[in-house]
Amino acid sequence: MNHDAQQIPEFNDVILAHDRIRPFIHRTPVMTSSILNEMTGRELYFKCENFQKVGAFKYRGATNAVMSLTRDKLDAGVATHSSGNHAAALALAARTHGSMAWIVMPRTAPQVKIDAVKGYGARIVFCEPTLESRESTLEKVVKETGASFIHPFDNVNVVSGQGTAAKELLEDVPDLDAVITPVGGGGLLSGSAITCKHVRPAMNVFAAEPKNADDAYRSYKTNRLIPSENPQTIADGLLTSLSPMTFQIMREKVDDIHTATEESIIRSMMLIWERMKIVVEPSAVLPLAVLIEHGQAIKGQRMGLILSGGNVDFKKMVHLFGSISSVAETG
Amino acid sequence: MNHDAQQIPEFNDVILAHDRIRPFIHRTPVMTSSILNEMTGRELYFKCENFQKVGAFKYRGATNAVMSLTRDKLDAGVATHSSGNHAAALALAARTHGSMAWIVMPRTAPQVKIDAVKGYGARIVFCEPTLESRESTLEKVVKETGASFIHPFDNVNVVSGQGTAAKELLEDVPDLDAVITPVGGGGLLSGSAITCKHVRPAMNVFAAEPKNADDAYRSYKTNRLIPSENPQTIADGLLTSLSPMTFQIMREKVDDIHTATEESIIRSMMLIWERMKIVVEPSAVLPLAVLIEHGQAIKGQRMGLILSGGNVDFKKMVHLFGSISSVAETG
Repeated sequence: MNHDAQQIPEFNDVILAHDRIRPFIHRTPVMTSSILNEMTGRELYFKCENFQKVGAFKYRGATNAVMSLTRDKLDAGVATHSSGNHAAALALAARTHGSMAWIVMPRTAPQVKIDAVKGYGARIVFCEPTLESRESTLEKVVKETGASFIHPFDNVNVVSGQGTAAKELLEDVPDLDAVITPVGGGGLLSGSAITCKHVRPAMNVFAAEPKNADDAYRSYKTNRLIPSENPQTIADGLLTSLSPMTFQIMREKVDDIHTATEESIIRSMMLIWERMKIVVEPSAVLPLAVLIEHGQAIKGQRMGLILSGGNVDFKKMVHLFGSISSVAETG
Repeated sequence: MNHDAQQIPEFNDVILAHDRIRPFIHRTPVMTSSILNEMTGRELYFKCENFQKVGAFKYRGATNAVMSLTRDKLDAGVATHSSGNHAAALALAARTHGSMAWIVMPRTAPQVKIDAVKGYGARIVFCEPTLESRESTLEKVVKETGASFIHPFDNVNVVSGQGTAAKELLEDVPDLDAVITPVGGGGLLSGSAITCKHVRPAMNVFAAEPKNADDAYRSYKTNRLIPSENPQTIADGLLTSLSPMTFQIMREKVDDIHTATEESIIRSMMLIWERMKIVVEPSAVLPLAVLIEHGQAIKGQRMGLILSGGNVDFKKMVHLFGSISSVAETG
């Protein structure tokens, strides 16, 4: 792909995306927690995308991308490589709009993820668990079927769709000092930054990333796109690296980035489960984790935090519950 | 105590309770889940008392009981025996209204529960883990301090307060065919039945109880109050037996009762965590568990289910996650 040819989305694209997808997505609630406010000394506003369809904000971008295709393109189907939330999101968005999704997944993907995508009616094409196999398999699928490739984040329509979460948050809580989002490939971060900097230029936009997968942090600080190499983090939705497009948006519009340790991530997840009584996945809690870990280094009193998703493999979580002391009993 | 002397609350008491406590409680949301609707072939409306203050409906009854005391009585304090949600609820209600709570707890209570109650500013008085010690210790506390004993459910003001959850549910979803609540001591069930049968006499009220703690089931079916004997269930909020007052209300106003196995309870809890992305405690899922286990034996299309609380000891849950297969990945 020629990334340079890709247009950078503007706030108007987010407005158009919202108008397009509004009937098909959940308007997710903004929740608050007096206990977490006390703990952090701020006013926190949590945008709960764990309650979004398929359990993650990814449904916004996938729906906008699918709905931006012509009927002919829809008839030929859509395709992507992902074993995570984008795969499920694209599968459901395709089914909802009379299209077919082809999902390239490594043979080693957990059965529960394969079943979830199949449950949304997508066709799965297995590849070897290597970058080369993934890309060549996807290319083959696209060539054979004529399906449109919907990249998980390096796609203008996807980024515009992801921006609708911050747009709703600012509609509900207009006077925020800052918004913090997790960053993996940078789709949610980019869409949020485009939205926030247009709607309320004085506010800050911060990125939050696992210390163990800190490619965006290093790229941002060195001003040079550095891909991640074999990152290991419990926040498995944040393993991917930025694309040239999302890196460009980040450089232009994001005010700072902070990282959180694995222990902070686990503690923050437990805090949200125990205190707010909602289920969020590890990747979703990075904004709270950096806020707790970096305290006064992060400026702002009224903070919007995007809880990106709630798809948890409880069996995988089991060993974590023993690894830290319980943070609370009642909320 | 002379139970015969206790008045039975009426719907007007629930109205008065609601007017009294409204500024101090959360109006909890009613949630729906298209996946759980599909699974059960019904329309389910979940009243989310896991989002109530202290994480359980108990805060309604405790607040109403505390606010019904005179200033003199408040100054002398309140007392109860409980190591669960009622203890935390009474502690916070007392603190909020300038009173002091004395909580009698067995020496064997988990540290996390002791800390929670202490965190709300209550004074803990330990007793031996026997019924005799609990009652004699409480009697001693009441005698020495002049505190008012607020029973967890055998109390008109507590039952009236618990009825406000069903009142809000019927305000939000007026045309329900039935409401199902868990039953332990019967406070929530009684308050709900008084409310539902007054507001919408044609609707049904069902009770849901663990099969392993089925004293209310056996009492209802034999028309004779049978206390529970050493019940063993994961739903540790439902170990207590009915009181004469709650049994009388149940006989007069409740249409039927069903029980659920431990496996149904665990599965239902996992379903709600994974599909609805909210944290609920085992005791809270009994209504869904009986609906899934007994299917067509329970009549009604539009069903209100009261999710009674969300205080989970995650460490205690660990071994459960391995015991059943995961029910879902995405929601």
